[in-house]
Amino acid sequence: MIPYGKMTPQERRGEYERVSGEFADLKARGLKLNMARGKPGKEQLDMVSDLFELMRTPEEYVSDGVDVRNYGELSGLPAAKRLFADILGCRPEQVFVGGNASLQLMYDTVSKAYTHGLLHSPQPWCREKTVKWLCPCPGYDRHFMVTESFGFELIPVPMTAEGPDMDAVEQAIQDPSVKGMWNVPKYSNPDGIIYSAEVIRRIAAMKPAAPDFLLMWDNAYCIHEFEGDYVEFPDILSECARYGNEDMVFEFASTSKVTMPGAGISCFACSEANMEYLKKLLTIQTIGFDKVNQQRHVLYLKDKAHTLSLMKRHAAVLGPKFRAVLDALDREIAPLEIAQWQRPKGGYFISLNAMPGTARRTWELCREAGVTLTGAGATFPYGKDPADSNLRIAPSLPPVAELEQAIAIFCVCLKLSALEKLGV
Amino acid sequence: MIPYGKMTPQERRGEYERVSGEFADLKARGLKLNMARGKPGKEQLDMVSDLFELMRTPEEYVSDGVDVRNYGELSGLPAAKRLFADILGCRPEQVFVGGNASLQLMYDTVSKAYTHGLLHSPQPWCREKTVKWLCPCPGYDRHFMVTESFGFELIPVPMTAEGPDMDAVEQAIQDPSVKGMWNVPKYSNPDGIIYSAEVIRRIAAMKPAAPDFLLMWDNAYCIHEFEGDYVEFPDILSECARYGNEDMVFEFASTSKVTMPGAGISCFACSEANMEYLKKLLTIQTIGFDKVNQQRHVLYLKDKAHTLSLMKRHAAVLGPKFRAVLDALDREIAPLEIAQWQRPKGGYFISLNAMPGTARRTWELCREAGVTLTGAGATFPYGKDPADSNLRIAPSLPPVAELEQAIAIFCVCLKLSALEKLGV
Repeated sequence: MIPYGKMTPQERRGEYERVSGEFADLKARGLKLNMARGKPGKEQLDMVSDLFELMRTPEEYVSDGVDVRNYGELSGLPAAKRLFADILGCRPEQVFVGGNASLQLMYDTVSKAYTHGLLHSPQPWCREKTVKWLCPCPGYDRHFMVTESFGFELIPVPMTAEGPDMDAVEQAIQDPSVKGMWNVPKYSNPDGIIYSAEVIRRIAAMKPAAPDFLLMWDNAYCIHEFEGDYVEFPDILSECARYGNEDMVFEFASTSKVTMPGAGISCFACSEANMEYLKKLLTIQTIGFDKVNQQRHVLYLKDKAHTLSLMKRHAAVLGPKFRAVLDALDREIAPLEIAQWQRPKGGYFISLNAMPGTARRTWELCREAGVTLTGAGATFPYGKDPADSNLRIAPSLPPVAELEQAIAIFCVCLKLSALEKLGV
Repeated sequence: MIPYGKMTPQERRGEYERVSGEFADLKARGLKLNMARGKPGKEQLDMVSDLFELMRTPEEYVSDGVDVRNYGELSGLPAAKRLFADILGCRPEQVFVGGNASLQLMYDTVSKAYTHGLLHSPQPWCREKTVKWLCPCPGYDRHFMVTESFGFELIPVPMTAEGPDMDAVEQAIQDPSVKGMWNVPKYSNPDGIIYSAEVIRRIAAMKPAAPDFLLMWDNAYCIHEFEGDYVEFPDILSECARYGNEDMVFEFASTSKVTMPGAGISCFACSEANMEYLKKLLTIQTIGFDKVNQQRHVLYLKDKAHTLSLMKRHAAVLGPKFRAVLDALDREIAPLEIAQWQRPKGGYFISLNAMPGTARRTWELCREAGVTLTGAGATFPYGKDPADSNLRIAPSLPPVAELEQAIAIFCVCLKLSALEKLGV
């Protein structure tokens, strides 16, 4: 195969006709395939449904002397705190165990900064004239939407192979209206990048002008390797504490992709001072989260080692799906030199950079042919990718056979939009 | 027994010495009893723990074609909406099914009014110079704390035997900075009063000056009779709609006192226009609430009729507890003419008005003797009961034998504080 950029106009015309024919055939099949969201597949759900066999005996209703079926324990069951602390490498007293969604805990942290201010805020953020926010990108669309929803000004920060461009970050935080930063530090969404030790050190050592700078550390994929062994990762709370920044960071995690998406448990971890402050605000909002489900998870996951063994079983399902996508891209797209992509070993996404100016068109063609992708641009603040290049592929939901169809269609659409761009 | 007010000083002195002796004896027992919060007792929890036997078969994972174990369905399972609509008498499409706590849904509704504004808000409430809020009282301390936490000015409205004093309400809402009102319309917390049809009509027909007036209708005890048959209650959504006020009201309910406290499901119900508006804000906050627990509840509670039969079983546990308290008050306190109380037929509380200026002292004496009561004043805005008279008794948690001890101590403390007040 000749790279599209090196083809003669005539060769490109021939290729365009051939690929257009393929596209027409695929479209005629009337498929309906989804690679849009990081949803676990049915096989994974079935694998963990023995979770529901717990909570059957009177002994299981009691945890550290607490009847988990009654009201109380705002910050969660001690045993659930120990579980998350074990997984994240922090201390149990730094953990607040929430409900089914870490997104809600993240939203609420930002919301409380806005309505009441954080521990070191001179005033609630709703009283600030401008709040700016750092968004490493490509990044997670739902993160960006939270901060956009509160009217913050989103500042894109380029991602490198090691994490966010720290020169850009260190420059930006000199502005006191820059109040925070999103991070998915391990298997970043969508690039699948693991922040390097040096990037983490520079983040932990930041000296932001804002006294209430909020480092949002969404460790969503902390144990989510689908290839190779578990990768150790530093505890951001002690890293920050080393530089006197213990109150700067809130870390988040959940079991949404360990047990049940939308029916797992979540947590945030922070300094004891932040915990005291937040509990005073949270006790107004709720009497406590679902402790029965917390107990169910404590009994099911037991500890980090046991949870990692479960993650190996998830990997056995997910690995082949990621390989199916990467193999197709290697085979169909690499020789044409019309896109680059990451080869992650964990997380839920493959991030692909198409020829500039072709991402949106590729997305449209996929939609026409029945393949749903995350919206082009979604991985950038305000949904606007300046290069119109990045596309996020989520291979987890469809069975492998469907996935192979979906990625074949995706490759054809990628080719077609590149050819259109190059001119035919 | 002679009423304390009619005793001679000498008789009172004698009585004081006798009651002081009783108090000393009780205190010496070193008891630890709790009548502070509306927590169901262990017998009730055991009664509903067969809830956990559900969600065992593949068919149970699917509801209306949705795999309840995966992400999605922001506003809840259609079957869970039908269940709440059946119970509340509204339409399923008016129902949003949430997580384990209706308090959180209430807080979030107020919070979103503050951060983003409601459907008819000229601006977010955080931009308003003053927000005032109507608090029928005695009322629910957690309600008052939510609105206090956002810096609203809490305006007390007296409760009558028919509900809030509507003359006072209709007067107050002429002020455009009065933005909302708390209500527990059936078995009000703590009085156990059922709002009369006429009060409900006047509420539904209100014409507040604020275009975004928020009628908070916490129907926490909608099916919570512990004595006698289920009492029908009007659907506030259609009542409001009748007067063109369909967007004024948000109704809340939960299964916290039907199945598991803190591990049940909750909902809000509102107009379709409000639902559209709120969903746009809520989709930023969460992907969806715990649908597995929603499905568990749909399978367990089935429909209104079946749920009412379960409530009869709760009543069989709760009825004797309420009667134990009321019998003790009738026997020990009534002849002394030092307090009045309500005789509710549902809900979770008994509201008692002690001799003015003695509630806090009674609470202190109870604490000394090992009985925890809801803080005196808690039933009023800012925790300040101007008459220092109201006390809320929650008889649900202790077993009857313990409750009898607790109420005996309470009666002694009530007598002692009355005698102190009258002078000895």
